[in-house]
Amino acid sequence: MTSAAAAPPNRAYQRLSVEERRTQLLGAALTLFAHRAPDEVSLDEVAAAAGVSRPLVYRYFPGGRQQLYEAALRSAADELELCFTEPPVGPPTERVARVLGRYLAFVDEHDTGFSALLRGGSVAETSRTTAIVDEVRRAAAEQILLHLGRGDTQAPGPRLRMMVRTWIAAVEAASLIWLDEEKQPPADDLRAWLVDQLITLLAATAATDRETASVVAELLALETADGPAGRLAARLVPVVAEAAHLLPPV
Amino acid sequence: MTSAAAAPPNRAYQRLSVEERRTQLLGAALTLFAHRAPDEVSLDEVAAAAGVSRPLVYRYFPGGRQQLYEAALRSAADELELCFTEPPVGPPTERVARVLGRYLAFVDEHDTGFSALLRGGSVAETSRTTAIVDEVRRAAAEQILLHLGRGDTQAPGPRLRMMVRTWIAAVEAASLIWLDEEKQPPADDLRAWLVDQLITLLAATAATDRETASVVAELLALETADGPAGRLAARLVPVVAEAAHLLPPV
Repeated sequence: MTSAAAAPPNRAYQRLSVEERRTQLLGAALTLFAHRAPDEVSLDEVAAAAGVSRPLVYRYFPGGRQQLYEAALRSAADELELCFTEPPVGPPTERVARVLGRYLAFVDEHDTGFSALLRGGSVAETSRTTAIVDEVRRAAAEQILLHLGRGDTQAPGPRLRMMVRTWIAAVEAASLIWLDEEKQPPADDLRAWLVDQLITLLAATAATDRETASVVAELLALETADGPAGRLAARLVPVVAEAAHLLPPV
Repeated sequence: MTSAAAAPPNRAYQRLSVEERRTQLLGAALTLFAHRAPDEVSLDEVAAAAGVSRPLVYRYFPGGRQQLYEAALRSAADELELCFTEPPVGPPTERVARVLGRYLAFVDEHDTGFSALLRGGSVAETSRTTAIVDEVRRAAAEQILLHLGRGDTQAPGPRLRMMVRTWIAAVEAASLIWLDEEKQPPADDLRAWLVDQLITLLAATAATDRETASVVAELLALETADGPAGRLAARLVPVVAEAAHLLPPV
C-alpha cells in the first residue's frame, strides 16, 4: 500500500448519478467475478474494489451478492452478444473466424468466471442464470445461421439448426478445456481449428441433409483458395487420399 | 386402482437383505428421477413406488431426497459407464456406432432426468453431482480414445484428447436437443450423424495435427467401403466436388 496521501480520492464521495453508480458497481463486480468463482467473491470486496461502502452496494443491490452476480452476468451476456454481430459480407468462414476471435478474447478476459458459470455446481447457479446462458447460446446460433444464409426470411430446417447448436456446444467445451490447459494451444490456433470443425461438420451434415447440401454449395461459391475453407481443403487432400480404398472405383 | 385383494403383497413386509432393500429403493428412485426433474420427486413418492414406508427410506438414506438423488445418479453413472465398454475389434466406426447406440438408448430411457441433470440450475445440483457427471465424461473420452488406438500404452497428445472431449460435448448437446425435439430424428439417424461428425472431426484435426493424421491413417486402413466411413466417403464425393475451385490445379 502507498501512503494515504498518495491514494486516489475515495470514490464513495464522488457525485455520480444513479445510473453511473450502478455501472461503476457492476464494473467492479464483473472484474471480480471474471477471475474468481461467484462463491468466492464477497460484497465487502466489491465495495472495496469500487471504493464505496458496503451499505451503498446494498442500496443498489438489496438482494446482495446473488443479485449483484446476476446483474453482472446480465451485463457480461449483453457484451458477449455484441461480439457475435458481424456484417454479412465476404467469405462466410472469415466472418465466423472474426466472431470466434472476439468470443475467445471474451473467454480469455473472463476466464475463471466463465468456467465457474458453465461448469455448474455453484450455489450462485439458479434457473435465472441458466436462462441467461441459454439466451446467449440462442443468440450465437442465430448469428451463425445468418452467415449460413438462414434467418427471418428463410428459416433453417431442424437438422441445420441442430448442427449449429451442436457446434456451439463444441466451441464452449473447447473453450473450457482451453482454460483448463493454461490457454494452450494459442487462441489463433484454437480459433482456426474451430472454424475447420464447422466446415467439416457442414460437409458431414450435407452428406445426409438436402437443405445443408444446398447451403454448403452456396457457401463454397463465396469462399476463396487462400481463406479458411481453401486452406483446409488443400490440407485435407493427403488425409482424403488415405480413404481411397473406401470409394467405389471411378 | 384395483381392489385391495388384487393388489400385490406390500413389499415393506418382504424380508430383504440390507443390500437388496437398498437396491430396491434405488431402483424405485431411479425410475422416478428418470422421468421427472429431481426437485419434483418427493420421498413419499419414492416410498410409495417401492411399497415401503417413508421412515424406511430415511433409514437407508438419512440425508433424504438429496442423498437418494446422488445415490441414484451414482447408480445411473455406473450403468452408463458400462454402456461405453466395447471390444476393440472390427472397424472403429462400427464400434463407436454400437457405443453410441447404447448411449442413446440410455438417454431415451432416462429422458427428463438426463435433461434436468445436464441443463443445470436445479437445486439438486452440487459439486458432488457435477463430479459424477464429469467422471462419466472422462470415462467416455477414455473409451473413445481406446478405439482410436490411444490408451495406457500410448497416451494421446493434447489436440487428440481435446478433440475427443469436444466431440463428447457435441454428442451431449445433440442428445439434449433431441429430447427437446420429441426424439426427432429417429435415434438411428442421430447415431449415424454423430458417427459422421466424429469421422469428419478426425479429418479436420488431422489437417493440422500430426498425431491425429497418423491415427486417421491407421483407422482408415481398418474401415470398409460398406461401413460408416465408406458410406460417408461416398456421400461426400458430390459435396467435395463443389469445393474444386478452392484447390490448387493438380
